[in-house]
Amino acid sequence: MKAPQDIDRTRMVILPEQEHGERLARVLKYMAKAGLESMLLCDNANKFYITGRIFDGYIYIGPDGRVSYFVRRPSILEGKSVHHIHKPENILEIIDREGLGRPSKLGLELMQTSYATVMRLAAALGVDSFGNADSVMLSARAVKTAYEIQQIAVCGMRHDRVYSRIPHLYHEGMSDVELQIEIERVTRLEGGLGIIRTVGQSMEINMGSVLAGRNADEPSPYDFALGGAGTSPALPVGADGTVLRAGMSVMVDTNGVFNGYMTDMTRTFAVGNLPQRAIDLHKLSCDICHTIEDMARPGVRCSDLCRKALDMAAKAGAPNLFMGHNSQASFVGHGLGIALNELPVISLKTDSILEVGNVLAIEPKFVIPDVGAVGIENTCAVTDDGPMRRLTNAPEELITLVS
Amino acid sequence: MKAPQDIDRTRMVILPEQEHGERLARVLKYMAKAGLESMLLCDNANKFYITGRIFDGYIYIGPDGRVSYFVRRPSILEGKSVHHIHKPENILEIIDREGLGRPSKLGLELMQTSYATVMRLAAALGVDSFGNADSVMLSARAVKTAYEIQQIAVCGMRHDRVYSRIPHLYHEGMSDVELQIEIERVTRLEGGLGIIRTVGQSMEINMGSVLAGRNADEPSPYDFALGGAGTSPALPVGADGTVLRAGMSVMVDTNGVFNGYMTDMTRTFAVGNLPQRAIDLHKLSCDICHTIEDMARPGVRCSDLCRKALDMAAKAGAPNLFMGHNSQASFVGHGLGIALNELPVISLKTDSILEVGNVLAIEPKFVIPDVGAVGIENTCAVTDDGPMRRLTNAPEELITLVS
Repeated sequence: MKAPQDIDRTRMVILPEQEHGERLARVLKYMAKAGLESMLLCDNANKFYITGRIFDGYIYIGPDGRVSYFVRRPSILEGKSVHHIHKPENILEIIDREGLGRPSKLGLELMQTSYATVMRLAAALGVDSFGNADSVMLSARAVKTAYEIQQIAVCGMRHDRVYSRIPHLYHEGMSDVELQIEIERVTRLEGGLGIIRTVGQSMEINMGSVLAGRNADEPSPYDFALGGAGTSPALPVGADGTVLRAGMSVMVDTNGVFNGYMTDMTRTFAVGNLPQRAIDLHKLSCDICHTIEDMARPGVRCSDLCRKALDMAAKAGAPNLFMGHNSQASFVGHGLGIALNELPVISLKTDSILEVGNVLAIEPKFVIPDVGAVGIENTCAVTDDGPMRRLTNAPEELITLVS
Repeated sequence: MKAPQDIDRTRMVILPEQEHGERLARVLKYMAKAGLESMLLCDNANKFYITGRIFDGYIYIGPDGRVSYFVRRPSILEGKSVHHIHKPENILEIIDREGLGRPSKLGLELMQTSYATVMRLAAALGVDSFGNADSVMLSARAVKTAYEIQQIAVCGMRHDRVYSRIPHLYHEGMSDVELQIEIERVTRLEGGLGIIRTVGQSMEINMGSVLAGRNADEPSPYDFALGGAGTSPALPVGADGTVLRAGMSVMVDTNGVFNGYMTDMTRTFAVGNLPQRAIDLHKLSCDICHTIEDMARPGVRCSDLCRKALDMAAKAGAPNLFMGHNSQASFVGHGLGIALNELPVISLKTDSILEVGNVLAIEPKFVIPDVGAVGIENTCAVTDDGPMRRLTNAPEELITLVS
């Protein structure tokens, strides 16, 4: 991985050439499967996937598989197949002039792009019907290349360093919000970018959440595994100002977005002594996580992973505490990479089958009324032979916070 | 403004009743202007505008002007006109059963909602044509109520406190990123929520930007007034790791999102002595800002404000440094409130005419090659008689950073 100052500011595609080619081949494979012959992409996550950078403009994959870049900003970008435009209405003229091939069976990002933008792009390209490029891109992105897994592993190492500092950030009398702010600061000092990309509109959060005491049982409108009331009805999720007191668990679930990729990791801390039930269920969360890490091999159904997790929680007599209590999540894990919620999803409803290179966050958590949440979350990659490769390696046991 | 712990967790509409009514009246007025008889809203900013909270679900305004809430989560929400649903396909049945009036001339959020979601909602409501609810809502939100201006004023006071601490956060040898992280921390400790809502897809940023030295002249793909290379091609905006050195200006442009509303404020700091040109242009930025604050009265054209700013920059012989140098922004100010980029926009191209209650961030900035950016930004409200009411009141002069 190059340091930012070594990256060519003007080169359109800053991924290594082979990596760029490998990703394009994946995209073309899923285009063919979906019956799309061309695509016009404008979602930042997809632009980052194909080029390694964010720019203002569009990526066009023509009917012959050739890729072109239509760039609004920055104007310094150059390279093979780069065309500068003011607006999308300029694209078709360039396609014709350069012989790039008019779009046929065009895919547009129907899940990530606004209705108004999709209609404008379709009109600009002269098409009146189009398919879903988001399905293609999410399928392609669900199986990570070796290079991508390495990027995520780098996030994991930095994320581990952040977690190793958490016990040192605590002091007696601190609130969950104050602890979260110190964790955010350390994450940023480790190089965290401070934003989290997501698919769809059901998630808003700062860099993660800290849940302590009763707040762990507060429902949230967002699609996260657990909730929390937050500090404002304008952002009802996560820490709510609870002062950390003996007998509370403190669950820290943050995203480590350091290089455009990310890890998702949860660890649980204890203030003073926790009830035995909390200690037992924390251990059970670790057991479920490790069981799934071992089971999750190529060819395995995601629904079977979810069923196994639910079975283990039920056998321990805690089905009503698993993945929430007042409000329960319907999944125990999710794909991630450039976005927090990529494919596949570990739920009973999904029919996905694991492939080598899937990267999953596995988060079997329990909510214990009045105590808080316990459990862990690891980000892991499906390998070709054997258990998953764990990319988040902070110690998993309950750590007691002492000031 | 109530403290979060005093807010009723279960009440759907937590705005004061009169405020809720005033906002709805504004929305109905712009619906009538746009020829829409009903609307279905799902954008979080719009839900927050109408209810004062974020929830997972939809707001339906029926043909008779009655408002209904279709809620997926949290399940604890209750109140008049609250209906719990699992999916949008449940809505029409409830509309019929409760006699809420089937949608006619329906508005959907075509700019803020994905193509796939718009098509799903249209099908669920049994309509095959629809209008643009985003135009309606952005027009309604462009003119703030007295209550909203008070919320923004509260943000301004907290934002001022953050800026008063900036000189104390600096130490010699610090990088722009390190300074930014300490400013973020202080913003969060003052109650900053850590996220910024925006309209459209052209903005990604953490809580703001710090620009120092040459980095102020680096172009960015995003629609911000100035750029900056950022620390990663995955988020190319703002601070890039420049070590702060004598002779550099340090422009701090952050968003104060404390309660769902926000202020936008920029102040410039100096490390050591700056060249006279930088000092002069900083003063000119203050003069332009104050001139616009004085001119911006009801009935004034936004394009005239922009022209005035450009004239003042040109008269000082600095048109090529105004609003950027390598890459120049086309606006000198923008509406804001719940989102960072609301209406109206102060640019030559806009035909908006100011109204009492518009809230604008005015940001006449200069980039001085090799030195950095200078200038200020204030968030101000248009009043009914006299100059704008300034809601950001941190000292405007260049402040020298000393460790």
